[in-house]
Amino acid sequence: METPKVVAFDVFGTVVDWYGSICKEAAKTFKGEVDADKFALAWRAGYAPAMQRVMSGELGWTLIDDLHRMILDELLPRFRIDNLTEKQTDHLNKIWHRLEPWPDSVEGLTRLKSSFMICTLSNGNIALLANMAKHGKLPWDCILSAEIFRKYKPDPSTYLGVASTFRVEPEDVMLVASHHNDLEAARQCGLQTAFIERPMEFGPIQGNDISPRSGNDLHCLDIVDLAGQLDC
Amino acid sequence: METPKVVAFDVFGTVVDWYGSICKEAAKTFKGEVDADKFALAWRAGYAPAMQRVMSGELGWTLIDDLHRMILDELLPRFRIDNLTEKQTDHLNKIWHRLEPWPDSVEGLTRLKSSFMICTLSNGNIALLANMAKHGKLPWDCILSAEIFRKYKPDPSTYLGVASTFRVEPEDVMLVASHHNDLEAARQCGLQTAFIERPMEFGPIQGNDISPRSGNDLHCLDIVDLAGQLDC
Repeated sequence: METPKVVAFDVFGTVVDWYGSICKEAAKTFKGEVDADKFALAWRAGYAPAMQRVMSGELGWTLIDDLHRMILDELLPRFRIDNLTEKQTDHLNKIWHRLEPWPDSVEGLTRLKSSFMICTLSNGNIALLANMAKHGKLPWDCILSAEIFRKYKPDPSTYLGVASTFRVEPEDVMLVASHHNDLEAARQCGLQTAFIERPMEFGPIQGNDISPRSGNDLHCLDIVDLAGQLDC
Repeated sequence: METPKVVAFDVFGTVVDWYGSICKEAAKTFKGEVDADKFALAWRAGYAPAMQRVMSGELGWTLIDDLHRMILDELLPRFRIDNLTEKQTDHLNKIWHRLEPWPDSVEGLTRLKSSFMICTLSNGNIALLANMAKHGKLPWDCILSAEIFRKYKPDPSTYLGVASTFRVEPEDVMLVASHHNDLEAARQCGLQTAFIERPMEFGPIQGNDISPRSGNDLHCLDIVDLAGQLDC
């Protein structure tokens, strides 16, 4: 295994805890009148189909902020919520800008930053990722987003876009993610891959498969473990 | 004057000292056989015409790294240098990734970062700006570049692109630069503007006009002074 030059991170679930952050916000916003676990999972479940509508051409290019809002606007009546002002709804939608890092993320990224160029490769839009980094003190060297490539992962142009942006070969880039389909797509483009275990990504009820899969260059307990395995 | 939400910085000359950094590198590389002052100024003088060739359509979209190299390949014979290997020439070209910050830049940016979203808005490509930030410890929240908008400043889509990326109004963005033409173009797009005095940007021989001009919201001695004027 060659040492990578650029270490690119999936963000939602891999670096930040969307489930826990949304549960907390839902509990605060809805004052216990909504099942926060179901609400968080339903919001996230709308994400892949919404992106698929963009990738299929049914919707024109649409940023994640707007996709999150479209999903939220369907969810609120489904959860029988009709008392939020526009300002409150917008604030709730922007919870995705304020997701909390997992406890290991800042330490792991800070260690990796000393030896590698570390960046995001997320379907989140640039403003979302920059606000999230500021909120959670995530020390990115650079924020790369599907917004730059105008394609959503797992489109190959996103993975290859990291390499071409940094003017290195695909094998000089390592993608880090807690999702096997993301890593699989990256590997098909020639990137190195590291899997991060996030057993609680979908909360305690739904659970998550964190078993190792062959093909990944590294399998890590968390980002601090990744830093250790990469000798930083 | 409304407080801006995003403070976007021109980089070459405004945040980093291209002249001093290139003079030093030239002295080291050419071992005193070349007039470093003339060499640095000639390299920079090739920059605007090269970008103009891109903006006119004579050249297709070309990153600054490649424009710098095209200019360098013309300069070397003009300065009678014929003993550099390809590796040495590439290393010299990448001096633009290793430009030193002005002495006030890191402190000023760090203070501004506590209150504002701070980003680059530079014609430099993303890899160049990310490498430079790592080298000089420039604490950007986000790196925005002409590369994202596929237009070079002073094209309006670059200035307006900062606002649309952060999903704010143009008047919520302040452009900071040591060049009046950059600020003038930003102002025409509705951005706020702050001028930074860099009397030595072009070295001690050529000098630089740093006189205040009407129209700018702020006139600052340096980036620490800007932070003070913006109450951080």
